[in-house]
This record gives sequence, structure tokens and C-alpha cells, in this order.
Amino acid sequence: MVVRERLAELNIAGVVSATGLIAHGRGEAFDYLLGERTTSDALLAEKVAVAYMLEAKNPVISVNGNVAALCPEEIISLAETIPARIEVNLFHRVEGRVEKVVAHLEAAGAKKVLGRNLDARLEGISSDRALCTSEGIFSADVVLVPLEDGDRAEALARAGKIVLAIDLNPISRTARAATVTIVDELTRALPNMIRSVADLREDVPERRRLISSFDNMTNLKRMVQAICSHLQTD
Amino acid sequence: MVVRERLAELNIAGVVSATGLIAHGRGEAFDYLLGERTTSDALLAEKVAVAYMLEAKNPVISVNGNVAALCPEEIISLAETIPARIEVNLFHRVEGRVEKVVAHLEAAGAKKVLGRNLDARLEGISSDRALCTSEGIFSADVVLVPLEDGDRAEALARAGKIVLAIDLNPISRTARAATVTIVDELTRALPNMIRSVADLREDVPERRRLISSFDNMTNLKRMVQAICSHLQTD
Repeated sequence: MVVRERLAELNIAGVVSATGLIAHGRGEAFDYLLGERTTSDALLAEKVAVAYMLEAKNPVISVNGNVAALCPEEIISLAETIPARIEVNLFHRVEGRVEKVVAHLEAAGAKKVLGRNLDARLEGISSDRALCTSEGIFSADVVLVPLEDGDRAEALARAGKIVLAIDLNPISRTARAATVTIVDELTRALPNMIRSVADLREDVPERRRLISSFDNMTNLKRMVQAICSHLQTD
Repeated sequence: MVVRERLAELNIAGVVSATGLIAHGRGEAFDYLLGERTTSDALLAEKVAVAYMLEAKNPVISVNGNVAALCPEEIISLAETIPARIEVNLFHRVEGRVEKVVAHLEAAGAKKVLGRNLDARLEGISSDRALCTSEGIFSADVVLVPLEDGDRAEALARAGKIVLAIDLNPISRTARAATVTIVDELTRALPNMIRSVADLREDVPERRRLISSFDNMTNLKRMVQAICSHLQTD
């Protein structure tokens, strides 16, 4: 309830779009179906994602209005500890909204947020959804996309990037396009990821073991099973 | 997409609340999991609900902001053909919002909409959620609640009313509290219901057969199975 009120307030403030509120509701439904908990498979996916980020040359965290609204502190903390860049990428690019989202992150303590000046384009998606920054997402080898839409996730994968998605819908196009899909609620996933950084920072063999033993299709299948068991036993 | 834009516009106009947008998203997720179609079980539940409405002495359709926004014409058409009363009942009673929702229905052609003067209370729910009208929901024997929350659905059932719910979540409290739960998307369910009225208006034996042979727990179990098969074969 507190989360919903915060989103409603930030909708009025222009950080969260109406479509963002509806998308949040979709996430709520899937989280409800998972029992509103981090499953052991989700926790494993969170560790694998951190392993990829620590192995990356230029990891970037893509942030939209909902992500900025829901957990600005955790995004900043993860970006600082990896370290990774933060780039604001909106689905609904209304005039002035990028500035509002960047300002919201800066008010929470973010130092250098990319996304004000979009000087590069991803291949294969239309119009302004393709825009990104050359020092951020365009040149990234690993991109964490919390709550991303399918078109962009697929374009990032086609561009050869390692895509780490946080998406509560295990059968979404984003979930399928990603290298690692964390099927968990964002405000639970990020603290888990931040904790894993400490464990994995010095442990290169464990990072590589996590990466090489992970299969995203198996992961997604298990998440579907978790939803069905919760639905049927409830 | 058109639906989302209409909801976003009516959110700005004060008919749909921010919480209503989030709730719409939850519905979208469940509808997606059902394959965005009316299953044969949902169609049966729609017929049974119409049978109950035609058998009723004082049937009432409870309408909230989302329902008024999504399908005012269909609500009015169903109310006229049964005939049933329409009562506006909001989850978020912000000053002036009832008037906006009533005006929205009247602009679509509704003649006499109840809900401006709430002069009765349901037992067992707190504060203003308990309010209703004495000539409408309070004295109704059958209430159709599209997109209702669990507290009110349970209070209506405890008050001895036949509760007909339209709810895409087959494991929600509303779905379980109802006598008949239509697990279908509102804009598909209402036209199906309107069509059934013609078939059932003169056929009293068929109405009673439909009512006596329907079991809501079996219905809900089948809807859960439909979701799981769609998730696992997709």
C-alpha cells in the first residue's frame, strides 16, 4: 500500500507515467502468484547476474520511471559497489520527463547519471526507443534492465550484449530475450544482489562457475512451476 | 493500448484513480495468463450470472471508476435489459469523485444512477467502504460486482446477498467469496452476458438448471488449470 501511494505521488510529479502504474499492477499480479517471496531459483539468478556485472568491462544499469520511483537508493548502491553506470531510459519520453527522473535519482544521491544527452542508437527498434548514450548502454557489454519492455530487451540482446533482466513475468519477451532473468520483485532483488557483490568480488572462480552452470531456460521453467504450484496449493 | 490510453485520460479527468490503474495492470497480467480469451468455463459462469440476475427481485450492478471508464455502454445496456439498478461504489472516495463517475455514466446514456446519496451501511467493513444506498445495494438480493475488492465482496456475501463477481484472479478473496465468479476480462464478459439475457429471459427451467448445476469452487479450480496449461505450453 505504501508502495502504491509512492507511485501515485510520483505519477503526479511526472516521474512515473500512467502506463508505468499499469505495468506495476502487472508485476504485482505475478508477484502475488509467486507468493511474494524470493524463490531459491530467483536468488541463484541474482547471484549469476552479479557475477556477470563483476566480470563486465562496462556494466550499465538501465533505469526507467518505475525503477527510479521504487528504489533509487538500491540502484545507486548497486551501481557504486560494482561499479556500474546508471543510464535513464524511458518508455514514455514526454518532454521534460527524463530530467525529472534524473533529478529524482540525483536527489537520492546519484553522482553521474547518463541519459540527458542521447547520442547513439540501438539497431532494430523504432524511433526514440532506440536512443541511448554512447558512453553508457551503447558501449556496454553487460546491461541490467529492471522492468524493461520486450522490444528493447531483444534489441540489446541482438546487439550482442549480456542482458540481465529483472522481470516478474517468466514468459515475457524480456524474460526470454535475456541472458539471465531474475524473476523477483525489484525491491527484494536489489538488496540480494548488493549482498552478493561482497561474496563474489574477490572470488573469480565462483563467478565463472555461476556463469557457466546457469541456464536461463531452465530457470524460467522453474519459475513457471513455482507459480503453478502456488496457484494450485493455495 | 487504446484501453490504456483511455484509462490514462480518465485518470487525469478524475474518474479513474492511480490505484485503479495499478489494479487494471493486475487484471492485464491474469488475462495474459489466460491467453486473453473467454474460456468455456467463463462463458458458462456468465450464463449462470445472468440466470441469477433474471431470477432476482432487486438486482443491482455495482460500478467503480475502472468499470465506468472501461465499458459504460455495456453496463447501461445490461442494466436496461435485465432490468437492474446501477449503483456507483468507489474504493477511493475522494471529494467529488462519485459525481465525476456518475456524470461519466450519464454522459454515456445512463438514466438513473444510484450512489450520490449514501444512506445505508453494510455490516462488517470499516468506515466509508461500508456505505451504500438503501434502495440499491443495501436492499438488493443479487449484486453484480465487476472488479470488486475482497472486503466488500465478503461483506456482501455475509449480508446474505448472491454475489456475482467479474474478477480475472481466480484465487482472490473476491473470487472465493462470490456465488458465481466470472474469470474473464470485463469488456469480453459484458457483451456475452447481454447476449445470454435474450436466451434466458423466457426460459425459467434453463435458468434454474444453470443455477442448480453450478459450483463456484469447481469453476475456480478449472480457471486455475487453464492458467497453468497456458503457462506451461506457451
